[in-house]
Amino acid sequence: MSTQLLPEKTVERLSQYRRVLSREIEQGHEHIFSHELAKLLHITPVQVRRDIMLIGHSGSLRKGYNILDLIDMIGEIIDCSNQQKVAIIGIGKLGQALLNYLADNKTNLVVSAVFDNNQEIIGTSFSGVLCHGIEHLKKIVEREHITIGILTVPPQHAVEISKQMVEAGILGIINYTPVSLQLRGAYLEQYDVITSLEKVAYFAKPKNYSMLLEMECEK
Amino acid sequence: MSTQLLPEKTVERLSQYRRVLSREIEQGHEHIFSHELAKLLHITPVQVRRDIMLIGHSGSLRKGYNILDLIDMIGEIIDCSNQQKVAIIGIGKLGQALLNYLADNKTNLVVSAVFDNNQEIIGTSFSGVLCHGIEHLKKIVEREHITIGILTVPPQHAVEISKQMVEAGILGIINYTPVSLQLRGAYLEQYDVITSLEKVAYFAKPKNYSMLLEMECEK
Repeated sequence: MSTQLLPEKTVERLSQYRRVLSREIEQGHEHIFSHELAKLLHITPVQVRRDIMLIGHSGSLRKGYNILDLIDMIGEIIDCSNQQKVAIIGIGKLGQALLNYLADNKTNLVVSAVFDNNQEIIGTSFSGVLCHGIEHLKKIVEREHITIGILTVPPQHAVEISKQMVEAGILGIINYTPVSLQLRGAYLEQYDVITSLEKVAYFAKPKNYSMLLEMECEK
Repeated sequence: MSTQLLPEKTVERLSQYRRVLSREIEQGHEHIFSHELAKLLHITPVQVRRDIMLIGHSGSLRKGYNILDLIDMIGEIIDCSNQQKVAIIGIGKLGQALLNYLADNKTNLVVSAVFDNNQEIIGTSFSGVLCHGIEHLKKIVEREHITIGILTVPPQHAVEISKQMVEAGILGIINYTPVSLQLRGAYLEQYDVITSLEKVAYFAKPKNYSMLLEMECEK
């Protein structure tokens, strides 16, 4: 299959295609056209066709793509052949919400351990996953072959803990703290709640929203 | 000031600049050069200078930007002159985490109401914010002049509730459900936890991460 690294945006879209396609299967659909898939995700049919060609799949002109084939193909590209293990570091409300979220959505990712520094919750389980003291991070990441870490600690601990995650052998980190991390040794994805909200707030100002509507009408 | 609508990416960066700059002030710094600000956010100095010129601010060649002036200027552009009110719809773990997050971070946004359909929690308060039954959404959004909504309901309710939010007069929605919404009448920002995670998982596969490092070395 593809031995080349895909661009980040393509990987994002493949993940989204798969989720939308799974819902189509649940609704009893077997085939889908690129323009239908595009509409469900608010992108252009050309983009959809380009992405799907990139992973070496093609549909039939008459029926469109076979949905199950496409789901399998996307899985072969973006998943590991076996499950990838995830640790959540900081199991406050956000950590717990993400843990439940992952449990509710069928993915190839399994949360194998959660970590915290709160003595009262170390040793207890969250949705069946044991909480360890943060000092055992390296030992457990190595033992469980965990490669992905979700960082949801308080901001003052973010830099130090992210370094420990890399030292423990974690190769991919998703950072939900508002701290902009500078990391070497792992792929880093930052998500910043405040920035998302401030952006929405900017476009939700009545004057700006009116301008946005005008711009869309002009298109 | 600026009567033109700024691009989405610019608004995101302005929000990030402000947060980073506030931390610089806390550390006792008064001025900052574009290359320093750029480094803190992993972007180019040219990008920083372009954004800041766009909002009509300029620094001194010798000392760089005056940080407090720049923070004020960004606020004038992206904030409302008074606070913008936010509602959280669905006050499960994720909703509560976001509520705490907003309380912990100084912004111009205030959560004025939370909504849920769970009779056991309606009428109770979360971090001082009263939880209302979802059937009162329109009444309370209008009364409180709420313009921004955070959607964290279970996926099967996402479409219906998002329509109710728009009908109630909400102009900006941030959607944390995995459902890709098609909305008219409000600015929509989607955040998809699973897509972020699957992207990190893809680049955290050992083979892919090695390729990524090689590509970075070649740069």
